[in-house]
Amino acid sequence: MATSTITPLPDSLLEPLVTAALAEDMGDAGDITTRATIKAGAMSKVRMVSRQQGCLAGADLARLAFHALDPQLTFTSHMTDGERVAPGDVMAEVSGASRAILSAERVALNFMGHLSGIASATADIVDAIADTNTKVCCTRKTTPGLRAIEKYAVRCGGGVNHRFGLYDAILIKDNHIAIAGGIGPAIESALAYASHMAKIEVEVDTLDQLEEALAYPIDAVLLDNMSPDMLKDAVTIIDGRVISEASGRVTRETAQAIAASGVDLISVGWLTHSAPCLDIGLDWVS
Amino acid sequence: MATSTITPLPDSLLEPLVTAALAEDMGDAGDITTRATIKAGAMSKVRMVSRQQGCLAGADLARLAFHALDPQLTFTSHMTDGERVAPGDVMAEVSGASRAILSAERVALNFMGHLSGIASATADIVDAIADTNTKVCCTRKTTPGLRAIEKYAVRCGGGVNHRFGLYDAILIKDNHIAIAGGIGPAIESALAYASHMAKIEVEVDTLDQLEEALAYPIDAVLLDNMSPDMLKDAVTIIDGRVISEASGRVTRETAQAIAASGVDLISVGWLTHSAPCLDIGLDWVS
Amino acid sequence: MATSTITPLPDSLLEPLVTAALAEDMGDAGDITTRATIKAGAMSKVRMVSRQQGCLAGADLARLAFHALDPQLTFTSHMTDGERVAPGDVMAEVSGASRAILSAERVALNFMGHLSGIASATADIVDAIADTNTKVCCTRKTTPGLRAIEKYAVRCGGGVNHRFGLYDAILIKDNHIAIAGGIGPAIESALAYASHMAKIEVEVDTLDQLEEALAYPIDAVLLDNMSPDMLKDAVTIIDGRVISEASGRVTRETAQAIAASGVDLISVGWLTHSAPCLDIGLDWVS
Amino acid sequence: MATSTITPLPDSLLEPLVTAALAEDMGDAGDITTRATIKAGAMSKVRMVSRQQGCLAGADLARLAFHALDPQLTFTSHMTDGERVAPGDVMAEVSGASRAILSAERVALNFMGHLSGIASATADIVDAIADTNTKVCCTRKTTPGLRAIEKYAVRCGGGVNHRFGLYDAILIKDNHIAIAGGIGPAIESALAYASHMAKIEVEVDTLDQLEEALAYPIDAVLLDNMSPDMLKDAVTIIDGRVISEASGRVTRETAQAIAASGVDLISVGWLTHSAPCLDIGLDWVS
Amino acid sequence: MATSTITPLPDSLLEPLVTAALAEDMGDAGDITTRATIKAGAMSKVRMVSRQQGCLAGADLARLAFHALDPQLTFTSHMTDGERVAPGDVMAEVSGASRAILSAERVALNFMGHLSGIASATADIVDAIADTNTKVCCTRKTTPGLRAIEKYAVRCGGGVNHRFGLYDAILIKDNHIAIAGGIGPAIESALAYASHMAKIEVEVDTLDQLEEALAYPIDAVLLDNMSPDMLKDAVTIIDGRVISEASGRVTRETAQAIAASGVDLISVGWLTHSAPCLDIGLDWVS
Amino acid sequence: MATSTITPLPDSLLEPLVTAALAEDMGDAGDITTRATIKAGAMSKVRMVSRQQGCLAGADLARLAFHALDPQLTFTSHMTDGERVAPGDVMAEVSGASRAILSAERVALNFMGHLSGIASATADIVDAIADTNTKVCCTRKTTPGLRAIEKYAVRCGGGVNHRFGLYDAILIKDNHIAIAGGIGPAIESALAYASHMAKIEVEVDTLDQLEEALAYPIDAVLLDNMSPDMLKDAVTIIDGRVISEASGRVTRETAQAIAASGVDLISVGWLTHSAPCLDIGLDWVS
Repeated sequence: MATSTITPLPDSLLEPLVTAALAEDMGDAGDITTRATIKAGAMSKVRMVSRQQGCLAGADLARLAFHALDPQLTFTSHMTDGERVAPGDVMAEVSGASRAILSAERVALNFMGHLSGIASATADIVDAIADTNTKVCCTRKTTPGLRAIEKYAVRCGGGVNHRFGLYDAILIKDNHIAIAGGIGPAIESALAYASHMAKIEVEVDTLDQLEEALAYPIDAVLLDNMSPDMLKDAVTIIDGRVISEASGRVTRETAQAIAASGVDLISVGWLTHSAPCLDIGLDWVS
Repeated sequence: MATSTITPLPDSLLEPLVTAALAEDMGDAGDITTRATIKAGAMSKVRMVSRQQGCLAGADLARLAFHALDPQLTFTSHMTDGERVAPGDVMAEVSGASRAILSAERVALNFMGHLSGIASATADIVDAIADTNTKVCCTRKTTPGLRAIEKYAVRCGGGVNHRFGLYDAILIKDNHIAIAGGIGPAIESALAYASHMAKIEVEVDTLDQLEEALAYPIDAVLLDNMSPDMLKDAVTIIDGRVISEASGRVTRETAQAIAASGVDLISVGWLTHSAPCLDIGLDWVS
Repeated sequence: MATSTITPLPDSLLEPLVTAALAEDMGDAGDITTRATIKAGAMSKVRMVSRQQGCLAGADLARLAFHALDPQLTFTSHMTDGERVAPGDVMAEVSGASRAILSAERVALNFMGHLSGIASATADIVDAIADTNTKVCCTRKTTPGLRAIEKYAVRCGGGVNHRFGLYDAILIKDNHIAIAGGIGPAIESALAYASHMAKIEVEVDTLDQLEEALAYPIDAVLLDNMSPDMLKDAVTIIDGRVISEASGRVTRETAQAIAASGVDLISVGWLTHSAPCLDIGLDWVS
Repeated sequence: MATSTITPLPDSLLEPLVTAALAEDMGDAGDITTRATIKAGAMSKVRMVSRQQGCLAGADLARLAFHALDPQLTFTSHMTDGERVAPGDVMAEVSGASRAILSAERVALNFMGHLSGIASATADIVDAIADTNTKVCCTRKTTPGLRAIEKYAVRCGGGVNHRFGLYDAILIKDNHIAIAGGIGPAIESALAYASHMAKIEVEVDTLDQLEEALAYPIDAVLLDNMSPDMLKDAVTIIDGRVISEASGRVTRETAQAIAASGVDLISVGWLTHSAPCLDIGLDWVS
Repeated sequence: MATSTITPLPDSLLEPLVTAALAEDMGDAGDITTRATIKAGAMSKVRMVSRQQGCLAGADLARLAFHALDPQLTFTSHMTDGERVAPGDVMAEVSGASRAILSAERVALNFMGHLSGIASATADIVDAIADTNTKVCCTRKTTPGLRAIEKYAVRCGGGVNHRFGLYDAILIKDNHIAIAGGIGPAIESALAYASHMAKIEVEVDTLDQLEEALAYPIDAVLLDNMSPDMLKDAVTIIDGRVISEASGRVTRETAQAIAASGVDLISVGWLTHSAPCLDIGLDWVS
Repeated sequence: MATSTITPLPDSLLEPLVTAALAEDMGDAGDITTRATIKAGAMSKVRMVSRQQGCLAGADLARLAFHALDPQLTFTSHMTDGERVAPGDVMAEVSGASRAILSAERVALNFMGHLSGIASATADIVDAIADTNTKVCCTRKTTPGLRAIEKYAVRCGGGVNHRFGLYDAILIKDNHIAIAGGIGPAIESALAYASHMAKIEVEVDTLDQLEEALAYPIDAVLLDNMSPDMLKDAVTIIDGRVISEASGRVTRETAQAIAASGVDLISVGWLTHSAPCLDIGLDWVS
């Protein structure tokens, strides 16, 4: 199923992001370096090359950035989003007017490096727990304005998406429980309110809270900051009645122990907010 | 001078970013969890608390996010942008309608965590070379759409800004030189084109290229990927005639050796594209 | 629970709609009739009065329209969204500069009449089946651009909301089934794809299809265009295992027979696309 | 002249509406049902079929919705805006990628159903008074944000447009008269103010008011809520000196009696705010 | 009536223009000169002083520009739009944070100088023909994006507005006549098409064309590029039946001769596209 | 170098301006004159002809305006931006649907006339001082919203651009100096603050101030309102150490005397805010 999740995002969703990024970079005066040093008619061929091992995401954004500057440029993908890359791998080749290539370069690399960084970090954890049935998912801790493409990058890396926002599913967290006056009142209130198409997940910190939550017809539990042993007990208690999700400072190393507990999902906040860029270069060919 | 560089950004620049981020998180249906579990009249007091050591940036964005949901909320800053934080430090306190606080929480934390992460990474390198005259600066490798606030975060961390885009200074890089047919032709062409208010910087990889560039009336040189020893030689050759900037995979450790060479600036791309979020929590008080 | 669902929409969501509507009505030249006939200093008091029986929705949009023209106007609500109105009931009173009142009148009434029309039509069906446990819900057949406020109006009328868009729940309809090659393949594919937080509903036209769908762990079924008798059989077959929703040309009259079948929900497309406006007038007081 | 009034609206005016409607329906997560159940390569042919008798309007909006999702789709119109339709008539055929067709379906139908509903209601009244010289026109009681396309739909149905907003003609109504201190002062003030290119129409409720208004060089009178007999008297008094427009709760039935009075126009507010959608289906062919 | 035409434009129409202009001037980096030279706490008082004789327009745009940078600034108008100014006259005083005043200065002056320039040029011609009944009006030859405020500036100068765009009145010009096949066919076609609220004006170059046009029930004629003598003949022929408008390279000098012919209006294209800015300075007081 | 500075602006920067201008002119009702008088199928050929001597700028904006109305129109440029024109010269030819040509005419001419007016005024001064080494440059006194294209027009006329906004260079003016407490404190503060890529220019009114400023390592001086003799002395004092720019009520006549002083640049504010439109007509061919 992995491949079917990597449905490309429509250009109409990506274009406003590319347009805004180019406007930010070009300002009113445009690329004065390129206009100052490169003749109007000069033609070039360049390659987008990975300098690191990782997973590709964001090729469409690069393509749109180059074409926004000059629709006549030829952009040839050598790899597709979701593919693993090694240092030296050529991801794409661009040829045409040198000025347009140089002016779009930074925006293209910024998008591709950022998304490939997220995809690579995701793939790294996905690989670490590949021998289990546990899936890796992301959170709402995304860069403001880029959620749609960052969640897409997680899918490219083999992960799955949690809810997209506050609007598409109910996740009752510690603060909701505190203010509502306990797990029971919070869930009862939510069951009365929820649309018939909205799932309800409840965050629990202890096995007692877990038992309390499971007394209600909820859909999932978020087991927060539990040790692998405690997670194992939780999975036993849950016994397949609801979906189980573990969270809390997950790394490649701790992921394996967590997955071994048998939880359905591990959610990893830093994938979208702290994964470092994948280092990608634009090499001049001719 | 550090303090005067941290002029707050005007709300008119920040508001569209906050509005877009809230729209992304709320969608058309709004925060269904909060509406489902928290009564309309409930009131709370919460604290934004750092879980890590670092440097604060982005408090205004948090304030705007809370006020966008409810202008009646009280937002009290306990620290200001640019201040160093230790684990447990209370950055701000928010009190008022529980629903508005909970619905704005994630957007406020996403902005503040992202910008404080950049400020913290910057401050870390600034501290490492505090005994030299070398400054830390950032690049155009920023998250698309967030350049203005990311460059602001660098200033909060004690760094300085390089050019903001392709439009406000001329930086002749390797690809420009290759396509223009050499350092000489590229610089000559730039000198003929440049506005009288635009500075010209030239990227060089070798000491020969450096000598070649210094034959022209340029303003700065970017010494790319040179070893500390080579940088020391470059600084000797430059002899104060132009500004010297070193770049290339800088870390806290390598920064010290680079700064010891006597360069004026170290530019660090990953500050804006790969610095991890500062971990900030929203703790319920009452 | 009815009241808790009528959480007011935030002004920040409503303001762009009001701004766009006023721009559409004022153009570049503004309200030339009012400028031509009313003196700049004239003051008036007017009342928004219902000419029909129904249910109020959209008072905040009216308030924002008046205040956009002149923040000094006094807008006093006499009734709140969700309240039932009879002919002659005063919904709100506005006083202040005559010019601003007259220029905002049409936009205020257009919003309020449209939303109150939806709320009134919803309330009418809700009332008709008040002695059952069946709820009334809406669909995605909304006026382009106004979905958020139209779904809000349904809540004001005592109805509940189905999914808000294609993005927040999975509803497998006849065309999906046809193209996917049957109910089985469609559901299997969806189960493999779906996020753990997305519910799955399946549209069925016959009891055979219903049995076929119920063999899978889905969350709800949409019983399309079934007679009351057939619905009764379907409810028996379902036996509380999944949520049941009936649809198909529902009127106040047919709603009672459908609800008597014991289905959980009746969805009514025309509430949002064909409910007539509630007739509201703006009466001059002084 | 009927045909020349149905000049198609330019795509540049329609595209922002389609883009906004698709964004509203797709959100950040996109059409998860279609992605979950339909293979990326699947191809389909579907037909847009009327389920009712009426008049077509909005085919261009449907075309733009499908092409926004996939420019490769083939959209073939079988009928043009303004044409009468019978149940079962095929309005258009769409073929190409199944995913794009299914994802655009609802937005295409929402626009086409809404506009065809307005056109059909208009055509119904136009037909009823076809043996007179009276024309049917609409008002400013339009759905916020959709005025341009709703007024276009009235033209498709054979009606004509009244002014588009507050900015393009002067219509002195009861509240203006009340606040200005009478018909005389209101008209005098308007005559002094009006641009030489702006027509002036005055609303009157009685024959006395009519005589009072006709003493001034105005262009048209709005005869509000008058009985057919009173309208006949009004037409006699007017004697062709100004344009006469009748308004007030017009239906197909009352329209005939009103038109028989000899007025030039009947304006019908509910055409744009309360006309029910035309029921249009999207039938799967292969 | 002159004064009543200078209804202030609503802030909601002006704010987007001010916001865009400030963004254009500030970019992402902001006002680096002011941040570099002025301390954060410095306070100033400045005066906006006219350096020329003319007529004020655009004070609200200046106020909005200053307040966008700092809502705490005090902006005190000493004169209102439409008032005549002499060199040295203080139009407004601004006091508060020096940084905000300096950063908004250019945008405030650009708007106020441009609009006051238009108002001044208009007033100059209005004054020249003050002893006649002829009015001065503007055209659609406006700066793209600024039509609403430029037409407002014409009103400030004592002029009146012609139609605002292609949408609010019918003006049949030479090219329409040529393509339609003559004055007769063009007018006949327009009479059949026109909404009952749209006036029809016809451009004529000769007295023969004038007679031809007057045979139809049109509302106004545009007498293009006629000599004063020929205009006098035209006015005689027209004999008050329709409104008469003269156009063609009008200056202060030629305006008097044209007005003497008795035409109702003189339209002057260059008022909005070529009137020089009024020279306004911002003088530092303390 | 002249030609290389006239790099065409990318369509992506121009399109939003054209879209906004067309929306302003068409409104919701569209071009009612053309729809009223011209048949849908009519075809025409027209020529854009200069009525004055000058310099062309803005042909791309005209092309985009015509194509926005109908992509099928043929737009053939006969001259390119920056080329000198004489009365009667054909700048471009447009052929295709008459309706689209007529509806786009005014917007196309408004852009082209405005930019060509700026280019022509610039060229006039450039020509006047062609025998010197002094360049002509523009300021930030631009029409709000049109800065990028107005600065482009200056380049077309053979001028050069000063800074684009407050963000791309430091220009310390009289008010900065007054508030900062003198030239010395202002420059010192700026040197400490400035990015290493930002040039610093200082405005001076007297030779004493000039000497004071030259004591610091600044990049340029703005010699404001000095007589030709005083400018000559200033140039002698500067002696090539920094760039010299003269400003203050420059005309074609005074430009020659100023340039004779040997300054590097003359900046002329009125080029962008008060240059009259170039008179361009659209002549019907067939």
